Amino acid sequence: MEQFQQITIIGVGLLGASLAKACHRRKLVETIVGFGRNADTLKRAELQHVIDRGTTDLKDAVAEADLVVLCSPVGAIVPRFLEMAPHLKPGCIVTDVGSVKAMLVRDIEPALPEGVHYVPAHPIAGAEKSGLDAATVDLYEGARCILTPTAKTDPGALERIRKFWQDVGMQVQLLDAEEHDFIYGAVSHLPHVVAFALINTIGQIKTSNREDILSLSAGGLRDITRIASSDPVMWRDIFLANKEHVLDLIGRLEETLGHIKDLISAGDGAALEECFKNANNHRGKLVGQEEE
Amino acid sequence: MEQFQQITIIGVGLLGASLAKACHRRKLVETIVGFGRNADTLKRAELQHVIDRGTTDLKDAVAEADLVVLCSPVGAIVPRFLEMAPHLKPGCIVTDVGSVKAMLVRDIEPALPEGVHYVPAHPIAGAEKSGLDAATVDLYEGARCILTPTAKTDPGALERIRKFWQDVGMQVQLLDAEEHDFIYGAVSHLPHVVAFALINTIGQIKTSNREDILSLSAGGLRDITRIASSDPVMWRDIFLANKEHVLDLIGRLEETLGHIKDLISAGDGAALEECFKNANNHRGKLVGQEEE
Repeated sequence: MEQFQQITIIGVGLLGASLAKACHRRKLVETIVGFGRNADTLKRAELQHVIDRGTTDLKDAVAEADLVVLCSPVGAIVPRFLEMAPHLKPGCIVTDVGSVKAMLVRDIEPALPEGVHYVPAHPIAGAEKSGLDAATVDLYEGARCILTPTAKTDPGALERIRKFWQDVGMQVQLLDAEEHDFIYGAVSHLPHVVAFALINTIGQIKTSNREDILSLSAGGLRDITRIASSDPVMWRDIFLANKEHVLDLIGRLEETLGHIKDLISAGDGAALEECFKNANNHRGKLVGQEEE
Repeated sequence: MEQFQQITIIGVGLLGASLAKACHRRKLVETIVGFGRNADTLKRAELQHVIDRGTTDLKDAVAEADLVVLCSPVGAIVPRFLEMAPHLKPGCIVTDVGSVKAMLVRDIEPALPEGVHYVPAHPIAGAEKSGLDAATVDLYEGARCILTPTAKTDPGALERIRKFWQDVGMQVQLLDAEEHDFIYGAVSHLPHVVAFALINTIGQIKTSNREDILSLSAGGLRDITRIASSDPVMWRDIFLANKEHVLDLIGRLEETLGHIKDLISAGDGAALEECFKNANNHRGKLVGQEEE
């Protein structure tokens, strides 16, 4: 038997539509309702059997839902939740796919109606592409999903949501929301800042002979800037929602850059070599752990 | 008939040994002599038929050479050249694989013996791995090779070296040495600084609960830091040899980072989105051009 009768997915983009596909494939729910602002997208999602029913009416979308998954960009999650809250039925569980958690917990928990539960989730899945057409049935498969319950989180709801993400194919792990935001600020948000900044710095460089120097680049630049193709709206929201940690982490990177600059400036070859050996080691740990 | 009777490769590492393999495969030379400091490596290279003969005696290595290719780390190229110069025979052409060109031109050209020619080259090829065992026959194939001749470069030697790198399988292009150093400072050296700095910044972060946060990372970090696995000695040399441009370019990156920091700090979502759309566009140009 399905764990949930009706699941409503708010936002039928890459993450929402991929989740719908996975739920259907794995027969996790009876009915999938999709909410979005664009009726054409919802219609296409219906025709492709990604969702069973689409609606642009939020009340209609959530009124009968046993599970609501907020798949909007991080900045839209709280407003969307506040708008739907009065229409949620008792016993409904709300989760989300937001990459930043503390802000969501702070704004959503106090606004939960009686009998409605919230279990914050961050499935570590994504791609540079976005939108319904980029969705795949296996986007979440084998990946990690972080849940950040608080002292107020209902234990029963936590267990059901843990099982839900596991059933989608994910490895579920619990973290404190603030710790989550700091850690993902470091391993995910900071690299995106860097990729955006690097390609913008290089992209605007001209020489007296050349309007554009990107065409002379080698493979290294392509790889290091891959995530600079990521969705501008999604990342705008993430950086703003995780402002304090992201600013702190950019500051740390600036310190490291400043240190390398000093070593180059001073011609300190030995210290530079040491610094890059450290980088080799950290990178080795990263690759080793990911291959496990 | 081979264009060169004897070619001497100085430094039988990734670049030198791959070049030797390509020369043999394509029958570009009759005899390949390898020079290195490590007799064991040279012996292995001989046994693997990468080179025909290895020697740790520089005079012996170059005395009969028609072509000498300096494949040492950038910082060792000039000292090695000055050491070998008295032993080069008239008509010998010297080229190299150094990633920085202006410094080499400045130090090598005035020290050229009568009848010996230098044609600075930068084959855009490499890998994170280094050493003889990482060498492959097709490392250079299809890649770009930049030559940076000066007003003093012998036109006949330039043509022969242009043909040599073309015969190795490369697309040869000419650039001014300073322009080369600035452009590759931007599209290659700066990304390496960034990768080293990013992984060192993240790698040393701990939280109160975790000794190591790298294990929580997603694929984005792995790609953006791939080049942080690059050879520390090679990159130490490159940054020091291209000091002025690299410092200038790190400064430009710091400005871009500072700008993004200001926008996040001010909560200016519209400007952030615009900034990331620009990044998407630059990145699109990069990928488009590379796929051509």
